[in-house]
Amino acid sequence: MADKVLIYSRFPKSMMARFAERFELLDTGGKPACELFSADELSGIRALLTAGGTPLGAEAMELFPKLGAIVCYGTGYDGVDLKAAAARNIAVGHSPGANAASVADIAMTLMLATTRRILVADQYVRSGDWAASRQSPMMRPQAGMPGRRIGVYGMGEIGRKIAARCAAFESEVGYFSRTKYDLPYQYFPSLEALADWCSVLMIAVRAGAETQHVVNADILKRLGADGYVVNISRGSVVDEKALVAALSDKTIAGAGLDVFEKEPHAPDALTALPNVVFAPHIGGHTLDSHVAMQSCVLANLTAFFEGKPLPYAVRST
Amino acid sequence: MADKVLIYSRFPKSMMARFAERFELLDTGGKPACELFSADELSGIRALLTAGGTPLGAEAMELFPKLGAIVCYGTGYDGVDLKAAAARNIAVGHSPGANAASVADIAMTLMLATTRRILVADQYVRSGDWAASRQSPMMRPQAGMPGRRIGVYGMGEIGRKIAARCAAFESEVGYFSRTKYDLPYQYFPSLEALADWCSVLMIAVRAGAETQHVVNADILKRLGADGYVVNISRGSVVDEKALVAALSDKTIAGAGLDVFEKEPHAPDALTALPNVVFAPHIGGHTLDSHVAMQSCVLANLTAFFEGKPLPYAVRST
Repeated sequence: MADKVLIYSRFPKSMMARFAERFELLDTGGKPACELFSADELSGIRALLTAGGTPLGAEAMELFPKLGAIVCYGTGYDGVDLKAAAARNIAVGHSPGANAASVADIAMTLMLATTRRILVADQYVRSGDWAASRQSPMMRPQAGMPGRRIGVYGMGEIGRKIAARCAAFESEVGYFSRTKYDLPYQYFPSLEALADWCSVLMIAVRAGAETQHVVNADILKRLGADGYVVNISRGSVVDEKALVAALSDKTIAGAGLDVFEKEPHAPDALTALPNVVFAPHIGGHTLDSHVAMQSCVLANLTAFFEGKPLPYAVRST
Repeated sequence: MADKVLIYSRFPKSMMARFAERFELLDTGGKPACELFSADELSGIRALLTAGGTPLGAEAMELFPKLGAIVCYGTGYDGVDLKAAAARNIAVGHSPGANAASVADIAMTLMLATTRRILVADQYVRSGDWAASRQSPMMRPQAGMPGRRIGVYGMGEIGRKIAARCAAFESEVGYFSRTKYDLPYQYFPSLEALADWCSVLMIAVRAGAETQHVVNADILKRLGADGYVVNISRGSVVDEKALVAALSDKTIAGAGLDVFEKEPHAPDALTALPNVVFAPHIGGHTLDSHVAMQSCVLANLTAFFEGKPLPYAVRST
């Protein structure tokens, strides 16, 4: 009999196909497990598959008395209460690095689309305004990439890939992270100092309680009127109300956002703004990235059911 | 008395400000010069400033009997009849390389915006479809950049900068140009062979009579159903009717276009398509690029009026 895996978050069926070949899947579709399955069924569950951003606390874990593994699809695990898991000896796994290139690429896409105003440009052509030679203040030339100061917040695998890409665009790259690394980019000892220096802030930090609303009104003000924010980490890192205010009153020039505080909702005050480019949390959403993430999930689940340590375990910090 | 320069194409006033400090400008605003200025005024004109794509043939040159210099704003000079200019001993200048980074960056912007479907993504968030969990077939995961085969057509300064940027995205880079260079990218001896190999064709070739409609139905078919075309060179290089057909019947997946056959017009059949990202020929349109191009123009005009050779002369091939 196939080992059972409860699908705790809402995932498209197509993303689960490879797992269904190896395991018996109990799919909640993101709904409360206790509404869909009997207590008896849940009591036998030893492994969960979840999205890292989905809240999964001590109380939820208690529904599954035999739970031994929480496997996150993707690199993030900010929704999982690691202390509660550790207290119950539940292993937590993720897919480190598997989507790093894909996420770095959406960061670059959002930065270029925002600074080169590609939404406005596309509309200017499609509407016939270009053919009619109508003036568009939004189409005035802006600063380009050579010599632009890009500040990368967080120097994990995604941050490094963003930095390498920006360097190829002939931009200056600086970064802030808890640790100073041996990297050919200027290190700043605080987020404030990085924001004072850079004109584009790329948020690539691992999210958690200590990064909640770290990008606030003060940081945005430091970026200045020519400044841009690109967030591909988690919505929680940015104070979304302060961001709406800064974009509305031109404290900063624009933003590119793949993540939001309450997904899948982006506030109306934000989506009404013309100087933002939005994406629906598709950073890791490429074919190659999904294959790589699924391989990590399969390796984690297989090892767990064989009684081995997870090969892609979350390390407590 | 300041030397006179006739502005032959339509340029925004702001782009002419630095020239107005040094020269007396006769601005046609892109209209026929003979309608705006007397034959007497035109007969004294020794230097023209034009956009490289604006047609400027032998007949037009005859309006200016004392013409000694045609200076193009930007890198292109495909509109200028070089043979006619040479026959009359008119020097032709341009701004080589000054906008190369800016143009390469719009190529990258268009490629990423198209392959990651950023217009659809932005609309999916703004419309509320994401919040309502509505399915969108256009948002299905696509191939990412790592390992993607990017074919660069033309290996001048812009092509090289595109290639370097693509390499930083962990893509494979190949190219076709008349000359094989000592570069770390795979060389293909024909455009056909490059199109067979790559999934994104970046058109960065210098336009001219010999490149007219070189990217035709056959080349597009070779790119295949997962293929993309990005054109930041000139509209004339692509057979626009064949492109509309290939995009409509899904012979290729999409396109990113900064240039068109008859600017500023993009055909309705093209602008109606959802799988294209458009820009209104803004490749060289950044602040730093304009400053660099203006410096080339000033250097060319100053040298000419001092009786010296143009420092940024077009070399006949």
